[in-house]
Amino acid sequence: MLSLIKVGVIGIGNMGTSHAQKLYNGEVKGATLTAVCDINEERLNWAREHVPEGVAYFDNDTSFLNEADMDAVLIATPHYHHPDMAIRSFEKGLHVLVEKPAGVYTKDVRQMNVAAQKSGKVFSLMYNQRTNPLYQKLRELVQSGELGEIMRTNWIITDWFRSQSYYDSGGWRATWAGEGGGVLLNQSPHQLDLWQWTTDMMPTRVHGFCSFGKYHDIEVEDDVTAFVEYENGATGVFITTTGEAPGTNRFEVTGDKGKIVIENNQLTFHQLRTPVSEFNKTSTTGFGKPECWTIDIPVSGETTEHLGIMQNWIDAIVKGTPLLAPGEEGIRGLELSNAMYLSAWLDEPIDLPIDEDVFYEKLQEHIKQSTYVKDETKSGTTFDLDGTY
Amino acid sequence: MLSLIKVGVIGIGNMGTSHAQKLYNGEVKGATLTAVCDINEERLNWAREHVPEGVAYFDNDTSFLNEADMDAVLIATPHYHHPDMAIRSFEKGLHVLVEKPAGVYTKDVRQMNVAAQKSGKVFSLMYNQRTNPLYQKLRELVQSGELGEIMRTNWIITDWFRSQSYYDSGGWRATWAGEGGGVLLNQSPHQLDLWQWTTDMMPTRVHGFCSFGKYHDIEVEDDVTAFVEYENGATGVFITTTGEAPGTNRFEVTGDKGKIVIENNQLTFHQLRTPVSEFNKTSTTGFGKPECWTIDIPVSGETTEHLGIMQNWIDAIVKGTPLLAPGEEGIRGLELSNAMYLSAWLDEPIDLPIDEDVFYEKLQEHIKQSTYVKDETKSGTTFDLDGTY
Repeated sequence: MLSLIKVGVIGIGNMGTSHAQKLYNGEVKGATLTAVCDINEERLNWAREHVPEGVAYFDNDTSFLNEADMDAVLIATPHYHHPDMAIRSFEKGLHVLVEKPAGVYTKDVRQMNVAAQKSGKVFSLMYNQRTNPLYQKLRELVQSGELGEIMRTNWIITDWFRSQSYYDSGGWRATWAGEGGGVLLNQSPHQLDLWQWTTDMMPTRVHGFCSFGKYHDIEVEDDVTAFVEYENGATGVFITTTGEAPGTNRFEVTGDKGKIVIENNQLTFHQLRTPVSEFNKTSTTGFGKPECWTIDIPVSGETTEHLGIMQNWIDAIVKGTPLLAPGEEGIRGLELSNAMYLSAWLDEPIDLPIDEDVFYEKLQEHIKQSTYVKDETKSGTTFDLDGTY
Repeated sequence: MLSLIKVGVIGIGNMGTSHAQKLYNGEVKGATLTAVCDINEERLNWAREHVPEGVAYFDNDTSFLNEADMDAVLIATPHYHHPDMAIRSFEKGLHVLVEKPAGVYTKDVRQMNVAAQKSGKVFSLMYNQRTNPLYQKLRELVQSGELGEIMRTNWIITDWFRSQSYYDSGGWRATWAGEGGGVLLNQSPHQLDLWQWTTDMMPTRVHGFCSFGKYHDIEVEDDVTAFVEYENGATGVFITTTGEAPGTNRFEVTGDKGKIVIENNQLTFHQLRTPVSEFNKTSTTGFGKPECWTIDIPVSGETTEHLGIMQNWIDAIVKGTPLLAPGEEGIRGLELSNAMYLSAWLDEPIDLPIDEDVFYEKLQEHIKQSTYVKDETKSGTTFDLDGTY
């Protein structure tokens, strides 16, 4: 019998608590929780009362990394700490699973990726929405050429409503110094990732229009529209906010051979019998359109969410299962949001890859003006997250 | 018995022919066709063969305006001529119905509006999609406050596919000199109008991203994304192309009290029980969202299209019926497209109202470089338009 992979969880706020529970409840096959770490007194008290006997708890990351008995670490600290914690974990020879986003700026996420590479350890990212069969199917259809060359990618993802009480629940939330961003960094990283993952395309130019504290009393952005251009001439928009309800979650990808729309948990494929580029050249009818079939594509499987990503990570450690969300890919979605901020701050379009030093510098300016005074020992309210993310 | 309103039609290409037919077939109650005019030999031959006895035909606008026995004129000439023809018609004391767009640039459309005002005659615009009960209902719901303050207006209108054969059918088509624009000026004026008409909001700033000859061998734009900002902080996108199929026609308007989506000829109202601005302030649940009811709104009536607009114009002349599409409002949608061009040409956002002189000047530069050599006596192929526009 194989021995269980010993996992430590650092950061037991909203997300880390949920992950730790899954681990100590034995929901992740092949893994066991051996340690938790948080600098927040209240969260440590929670741990003392709830985690099973034998699970060690630590109030600082240095002791955690030096003393905990573990093979692997799940990092669910505030975003800024992700890369540093991951790098130090890799240096200790640990496998790493990082909560999204990969970090706040690509400059240090790139260093995290280098450290991961060097360590040879299993590195995954909590892109739990990659477990959604709808997006897996879209990716498969794009990769197998069913859409032909992609011409447009429009994602309206405005159903991330958060009330002011959410932002008030922790002083670090939605501040430049404490969190490093708003809806682009906290809520939408999933869609930013799926946008590039399903299409396997990164834009070459990003026009970002961000509104900061538009609907909430916060420093960072809660409303964004971005227009992007791709190398092949395709374009796209990405529209997101935490200020609207009920909001929309509609992803439309148009290609030479048809269009796929994912909305209301359904994937619809509008397939052209003749590629539009060919019809365009050969049709003599002026107003005619290529014949289009609306096809009901079977999509099977469950959205396994966070548990699915954790299981996949453990399976990759134990038996070499390919990762659904390789950690190195976290930089892609992050670069998209970094570009959107930079575009808004500089009021100009941004070519990718972005100038990481310029972004870092502009971010520091915002941090300096941030109202947040660091005291992470007080993390604030923990909400019940069942079914909300 | 009231005598019939005598109508002349100038420009009997694709649209004018269709309108003339409706008139001589007696489909427009209270009106009769008395004259047609075109400079194109082939179209005049068509008229000689098809229009009923007693309808006069003219091969130039001066004779038409001076000699035809008419009370009212329907202008379906190439776009550039609309304002000039309308102004000269008003000066003759005629009622005027102008095909969309109102013109090519707002500078002369403004003069047309002044002439209309001065004449006191009935002036309407062929915004036939204003007859669609779905958009009428949306307008009514917005005006009656059902949506509360508007926060977002997103229109994806990419189902205007045209093949190369369409553009090849007339040398003037899709040239700066002959037509003055592409999808924004020929296909999308309907949606540009409905966008502002249903919401009763004009943006204050327009960011336009136009691709010229992207999918077709043409000078003008066939793919556009625009991001707009409104005075109250609301934003919107407008996405249109003639290069995709099957395309999308989805208009989403989000307000403080809910969201309305018009797509697939259906209007859906997502109504919040608590306005989102209020819920945002009062909710203590962090992740909670206001309760939302999906409501099936009854929408009754027929889309009467061009015939509906013609009938309404005649009714306004005969009995003072309020105009559904007052001619003076044509400048609004046109200013939106002018702003999108200007933004793309200057590569910067454009504040509204636009600088009409700058737009006119930039347009002239494009006209000078246009491949189109004016010879409007050859208008090219006339397509059967049944149900295509």
